Amino acid sequence: MALMGRMMSEPLLISALLKHAERHAGETEIVSKRVEGDVHRSNWREVAQRSRQAAQAFARLGCEAGDRVGTLAWNGYRHLEIYYGASGSGLVCHTINPRLFPEQIVWIANDAEDRVLCFDATFLPLIEKLAPLMKTVRHFVMMTSRAHMPASTAIPNLLCFDDLLAAETGDYAWPALDENAASSICYTSGTTGNPKGAVYSHRSTVLHAYAAALPDAMDCSSRDVVLPVVPMFHVNAWGLPYSAAIVGCKLVMPGPHLDGKSLYELFESEQVSFSAGVPTVWLGLLNHVKANDLKFSSFKRTVIGGAACPPAMMKTLQDDYGIEVIHAWGMTEMSPLGTLSKLTTRQLGLPPEQQQRLLEKQGRAICGVDMAIIDDEGRSLPWDGQNSGNLVVRGHWVISQYFKNESSPLVSVDGEPGWFPTGDVATIDADGFMQITDRSKDVIKSGGEWISSIDLENIAMAHPAVNEAAVIAAKHPKWDERPLLVVVLKPGASVTRDELLAFYDGRIAKWQIPDDVVFVAEIPHTATGKVQKLKLRDQFLAHRLPTA
Amino acid sequence: MALMGRMMSEPLLISALLKHAERHAGETEIVSKRVEGDVHRSNWREVAQRSRQAAQAFARLGCEAGDRVGTLAWNGYRHLEIYYGASGSGLVCHTINPRLFPEQIVWIANDAEDRVLCFDATFLPLIEKLAPLMKTVRHFVMMTSRAHMPASTAIPNLLCFDDLLAAETGDYAWPALDENAASSICYTSGTTGNPKGAVYSHRSTVLHAYAAALPDAMDCSSRDVVLPVVPMFHVNAWGLPYSAAIVGCKLVMPGPHLDGKSLYELFESEQVSFSAGVPTVWLGLLNHVKANDLKFSSFKRTVIGGAACPPAMMKTLQDDYGIEVIHAWGMTEMSPLGTLSKLTTRQLGLPPEQQQRLLEKQGRAICGVDMAIIDDEGRSLPWDGQNSGNLVVRGHWVISQYFKNESSPLVSVDGEPGWFPTGDVATIDADGFMQITDRSKDVIKSGGEWISSIDLENIAMAHPAVNEAAVIAAKHPKWDERPLLVVVLKPGASVTRDELLAFYDGRIAKWQIPDDVVFVAEIPHTATGKVQKLKLRDQFLAHRLPTA
Repeated sequence: MALMGRMMSEPLLISALLKHAERHAGETEIVSKRVEGDVHRSNWREVAQRSRQAAQAFARLGCEAGDRVGTLAWNGYRHLEIYYGASGSGLVCHTINPRLFPEQIVWIANDAEDRVLCFDATFLPLIEKLAPLMKTVRHFVMMTSRAHMPASTAIPNLLCFDDLLAAETGDYAWPALDENAASSICYTSGTTGNPKGAVYSHRSTVLHAYAAALPDAMDCSSRDVVLPVVPMFHVNAWGLPYSAAIVGCKLVMPGPHLDGKSLYELFESEQVSFSAGVPTVWLGLLNHVKANDLKFSSFKRTVIGGAACPPAMMKTLQDDYGIEVIHAWGMTEMSPLGTLSKLTTRQLGLPPEQQQRLLEKQGRAICGVDMAIIDDEGRSLPWDGQNSGNLVVRGHWVISQYFKNESSPLVSVDGEPGWFPTGDVATIDADGFMQITDRSKDVIKSGGEWISSIDLENIAMAHPAVNEAAVIAAKHPKWDERPLLVVVLKPGASVTRDELLAFYDGRIAKWQIPDDVVFVAEIPHTATGKVQKLKLRDQFLAHRLPTA
Repeated sequence: MALMGRMMSEPLLISALLKHAERHAGETEIVSKRVEGDVHRSNWREVAQRSRQAAQAFARLGCEAGDRVGTLAWNGYRHLEIYYGASGSGLVCHTINPRLFPEQIVWIANDAEDRVLCFDATFLPLIEKLAPLMKTVRHFVMMTSRAHMPASTAIPNLLCFDDLLAAETGDYAWPALDENAASSICYTSGTTGNPKGAVYSHRSTVLHAYAAALPDAMDCSSRDVVLPVVPMFHVNAWGLPYSAAIVGCKLVMPGPHLDGKSLYELFESEQVSFSAGVPTVWLGLLNHVKANDLKFSSFKRTVIGGAACPPAMMKTLQDDYGIEVIHAWGMTEMSPLGTLSKLTTRQLGLPPEQQQRLLEKQGRAICGVDMAIIDDEGRSLPWDGQNSGNLVVRGHWVISQYFKNESSPLVSVDGEPGWFPTGDVATIDADGFMQITDRSKDVIKSGGEWISSIDLENIAMAHPAVNEAAVIAAKHPKWDERPLLVVVLKPGASVTRDELLAFYDGRIAKWQIPDDVVFVAEIPHTATGKVQKLKLRDQFLAHRLPTA
C-alpha cells in the first residue's frame, strides 16, 4: 500500500502570493500611469489592503463563489486589486479585451455571465452603449475616484470603485478555496468563429507563476523593476502580476500609454529593468528611441512573444541597445507560457551565429509543459530540427476544455490521449529547442511542398526599407499556391518590387522566393496585435501573380 | 456554486522532472568523482535511462508501492539514479546519514522498515557488521560495478547495482502516482532522543524544487554547473538533485572527497559556477586555497546554510574571492529551505555596511513558506528586527507530523493552529528579513536577560587566531548562567584569554562579554556538522568561572 507523505496540506492559492508580497515586499512600489495621465504610486502593502477591501465590496454587491467579475481595463493598480480581490475571494476575474469589436465584447460578457463589470474611465462611452445589451451584469463599476465620476451617465446606478473600497475595512481573511476552483477566464480572439473561454484555476495560475519566474524563463527577482507592456487583458499579462508577487518586485503599469514616447519616459523615470510584450510594441518604442537618438539607462532584458520576433528587431535590441531578448511562445490556452529561448552552458560555447539562430527559435519548454510534434495521423515526429509537424502540448497550465463546451479539444500522440493541439506547425531540435514554422492555416502549399510564411516575412523585415511584412498564399494555376509578399514601407523609404525580391537571393531556396510584392499603407491586425492573414487573403484574392 | 477550472489535471511528480531533463538537457553532463577516486561522466539522458532500469530492478526484487529503499551513499550518479528510480516508481527513497553512530543507523533502518539497502563500497565493512541487525532489509545492494564487488563477504546474497541495472531494458513508463504519496524519508539527527523521520511527498518535493531554483533563492539555471557539497543524505542535498533536473543544468558530484584540495580541483576541472554546503566545508576549502595562493576561475556564488555562516568567512569569500554568499536557513522538517538572504532593489541602495548586515541575516522566506515569531504563550511578536521570539513556520514543504508518530508537533499562533515550531529563536525585521539569534536551548539566560551564543561566536570567529568558536552557558552563582567561550586556535596561532576577551570590547554590550575562555584542540560536532553544544556543556559542567 502506498505510503503517504506527512506534509502540511495547503492549497495553491492566488491569495497566498499576495500575502507573501505584502509580508516580504510591503514597501515595494506599484507605480501606475493612470488614464488621466498622472502617475500614481502605491506598494504591495496598499494593494493587499485594497484587494481585501475589493473582496469585501464584491461580497456586499451580492457576488457569490464562482461569480464572474468582468474587467475592461488597462494595466494599473486598480486592475491588480480586482485580480487579487476577485480571485482571492473565490470569484472569477474575467478580463475582457477592450480592443475587440463592441459586439464581441457584449457576446463575451454574456457568455461568461459576468455579474459585475469594472471598467476604466476610457471606456465609459463604450459601456454606456453596451450596458443595455449585457444581460447578466447587475453592477457597473467605474475604476476611478469620486472626483472623476461623470456628472451624468446613461448607465443606471453606476458605481465608483474607490467609493466601494472606502466603505470597507479590509479586515478580511482570504478563504481556503479548492485549488482547482476557477480563478480567472480569458477568451481567445479566434480569427474565425466565436471567441472561446479558457478557465484557469488557482493551482494552474500559481504553478505557472512559479515556473515563469525561473532563471531560464522570465528570470524575475526582487531586484527587478518590471513593466508589463503586455496588457492584463492578454492572458493575465503573461502571468506577471502573479510572478511579481512571488518575487516581490516593483511593478510599473503603463495604463493606456503604450506609444514609444510614453513608454520610454516611463522606462527611464522608473528605472525599469525588465519588460514583456508583443513585437509591434517594441517597434514603436525603437522608432522613438532611434528618431531621438536616445539610450536606455536601466532596461536590461525583455521577453517577446505573442508573435515571432523578427530577427532584425532582435538584433537591434541586442546589438544597438544591449538588451537581452528572450523569445517566448505560448497561447491563451497555456496561461500562456510554453517555451522560452535561453541558451544552455553548452550552447554558449557555439559560434555567435549559431547562438543567434537558436535565440531566434521559440526555445525550450519550461518544466511543467511537455511538447510533441505529430503528423496528420497523430504519429510523433523526431526531434531533429528538420521534421516539422503539428505542435501539441500538455501540462499543469494547459486547458483541457473550453468554457461551456463539453467536447474535448484534445488529441492523441502515438495513441496516448490528452494533448492540446496548438494549431502551430513547428520543428524541435535534439536539445528541445522548438521553432514555429507557421500557423497550420498560414502555410503556403506550393506544388505539394510547404513554404513557411514566417521565414519569408523575417527576410523581408530585415530589409532596411521595410516596416512590416506579411506573406500569404496566392492562388496559382500550376502550383496551386505561391507566396505573395505584402509590405508596409518605413516613412520616407523606397524600394522596388524587383529589389525586394532580389533581397531573397541567397537567403532562402530559390523556389521559396515570393512570386510578387504588394505595397500597402497598412496591414490589418487583430485586437491582440496579430496580422489578420485571413483578411489579407480575402483582400488579395483576385491578385494575379506574374507568370514566369 | 464554485466554478471549477478547466485545466489539465496532472499530479506533481518527481518523475516528471527527470523526464523534462532527459528531453531538454539530455546531453548535459552529470560528473561524479567516485569512491574509487576516478571521475565518471554521464548525462541526464543516461541517468534517466538507468533510473528506469533501477525502477525495474527494484520491482524485480519484489518492492511494492510505498516500500522503503534505504541508501548509505555519497553524492554520485548511482545515488541520483536511486533517487529517481525509487521515488519515481512509487517507492520511498530513504537516505541514511553514514556519519551517524552505527547503532543509530540500525535503529533508523529498522524504524523506516527499509526493504532494500543500497550502499557505496566505502561502507561495505560497516554494513557487514550491521546487516544482521537490520531486520526488515531483504536485499543488500552495493552501488558499484561487477569489477569492484568483493570476492567474499559476510553479507549473504550481496547484489551488485550495475548488474541489477544491466538485467533491465529501461523500457518503463513512470506511473501516475498520487502527488501526496511519500517520495522520500530523511531522519533528523536530534541531539537528544531517537532520530525522527520527515516523510516528504512528491508534491512537497516538486514545489520545493521549483521555489528553490528561483532567482531570489538558489538562482539555478541551465547555464549553471552545480556542485552540491551538501550530501544527498542531508535533506536530499537541499533539493538540488530535483532543482537541477527542472533547469537541466550540469551536476558535479564530489563523492566522499570533501577535503579542500579535492574540492578545489573538481571546482576548477569542471568549471563549477554554484555550490552549496555548511560553513565547515568552506573552511576547509578556503584554508586550502589560501595556503596555496589559488584563485577560482568559475565559482561565482554559494548558498551557505545548516549553521550560521560566520561573518568573517562570508567577507573572505566575497571580498577576497568575489564569490556571492547567499545565507540560507532551513531544516530537515522543511525540505529544507525556508529563508535566503538576497537583497531587494531598495536594499541595494543602502550603505555597504547596512547591506552586509542584512546579508548576514538568514533572509526572507521563499514564497511558499510563512513565518512568525511568537512568545511562550503563542502570541505573535512584531516584525521590527528587535523583538526575538520562537520561530514557527508553515507551508507546502513543511512537515505536519513525524513518521510513525501520531501526535502533532504543531502549535498555534494567536489561536490559529498549524504552525511548526522550529526550535530556533529569531528576530524578523520590517522587510521580512529573519535572523536566528539562537537555538532556544542554546540561549544563555543571564540574570533574566537572554544572551545570544551565536553573536558571541561570530565575534570570536572574526579574531585572526581563532579557527572555531562555541559559546555555552556555564553555571554562575549570582547570574544563574554566564557565557563561556570555547576556542580552537588556527595552526600556529596564539592568543591569550585576556586578549580574546578584550577583542569583544566595543563589539557588544559589556554585560554580554563571556566570563571566561577555554582553549581546546577540537570542538565536538554532530554527524551533520553542527556543534554539539549539549556535549560541550556536559564537558564543561564543572568549569568554574572566575569571580569578578
